[in-house]
Amino acid sequence: MPTVNNSKVPVPTLERLATYLRYLLDLEHDNVETISSAEVEKQTGINAAQFRKDLSYFGEFGKPGVGYNVIDLQNSISRILKIDQEQRILLIGAGNLGSALAGYPGLREHKFNLVAVFDNNYAKIGRKMWDHEILDFARVHEINAQLKARIAILAVPRNAAQSVTEELIRAGVHAILNFAPTILRVPPHVVVRNVSFVQELAVLSYHLSTEHPENSPSEAMED
Amino acid sequence: MPTVNNSKVPVPTLERLATYLRYLLDLEHDNVETISSAEVEKQTGINAAQFRKDLSYFGEFGKPGVGYNVIDLQNSISRILKIDQEQRILLIGAGNLGSALAGYPGLREHKFNLVAVFDNNYAKIGRKMWDHEILDFARVHEINAQLKARIAILAVPRNAAQSVTEELIRAGVHAILNFAPTILRVPPHVVVRNVSFVQELAVLSYHLSTEHPENSPSEAMED
Repeated sequence: MPTVNNSKVPVPTLERLATYLRYLLDLEHDNVETISSAEVEKQTGINAAQFRKDLSYFGEFGKPGVGYNVIDLQNSISRILKIDQEQRILLIGAGNLGSALAGYPGLREHKFNLVAVFDNNYAKIGRKMWDHEILDFARVHEINAQLKARIAILAVPRNAAQSVTEELIRAGVHAILNFAPTILRVPPHVVVRNVSFVQELAVLSYHLSTEHPENSPSEAMED
Repeated sequence: MPTVNNSKVPVPTLERLATYLRYLLDLEHDNVETISSAEVEKQTGINAAQFRKDLSYFGEFGKPGVGYNVIDLQNSISRILKIDQEQRILLIGAGNLGSALAGYPGLREHKFNLVAVFDNNYAKIGRKMWDHEILDFARVHEINAQLKARIAILAVPRNAAQSVTEELIRAGVHAILNFAPTILRVPPHVVVRNVSFVQELAVLSYHLSTEHPENSPSEAMED
């Protein structure tokens, strides 16, 4: 059975493509028309050679001496990442985080279409969360047979995450954005991305510890 | 002036350390006492040699033929990442996402201490969000002179993110976890980690597109 690991494009390249896209959206916002790879490096911190190499997986972009057209490159990256077309998404977990994600305006801007919200708490099932009625997770297989979403966002507690994952996979989900603080075990055809606030804060915390004392906040605050 | 770039430990190593820590917490939860690097590879998908190399930056861990004690390694990684000690955090933005983050139980479990919540919306200032009174962001400099937090979580709209960042840096913040969909421009002594839901979904979206048709959801759902 083919797996996502067959893809020849490294995951860090995909992550950087999404970073370039965010930067290009900033530029469009500021009415900038063309950029150079040197400017990309200056603004994103990603090396200009790395930027050109990342793009080279997908063809030729930009013109020598002119640079990259902001809108064209934005459209190209959207096409590469397949976010120029509708992607249907299930959200599992109608708690605080689930609610914040369901209301996140960035999803619709990018054609990510949240098609259903599930929970297993009878106090929540049947209620509205934003525009969505909260559905019984026990019905996910039946409901996704119609909706055919292949991406799910997991915003459930740690101890529920693995069993919910297994049910989602049986319901046809192949890609999971996991917010639960646990490592999900999935078959090879399923891809998981983990978002961990604690992990991100831990990396920041480490960086603070490597600073020299003259960068301490008390010093920095002396105006 | 020293910068965080002087640190010799690569950022991906730090990210993986946080992944190992999450896995070790799972293991503790399941009452597992020792593990091998082969098991780490099996469960986290991170190569056993990579695991050993990541740890080697910080000393010697584990015993040949025995493996790694789960609790000891957990404590060591917590110490390395400096999350065994209190880290004070400011949260900027008391919207849906800010509220979900402020209520996130994982923060306290790891000694991340949310010490103040700020917003610039007069309809919100003075109200309670969880245990926190929402404070006027105009007072961040004055208030953080007392609190001395060096980490801030940014959960504000795109167009506010840069000016809020500059004010935070003036208030002594050196590390920012940014949820706004924009690239922040910061001086070299400040470190930023970006969390982008759209970026994560875009990477998943790309992976789905590289699947072969026999992995389509309609097929997967035939029981």
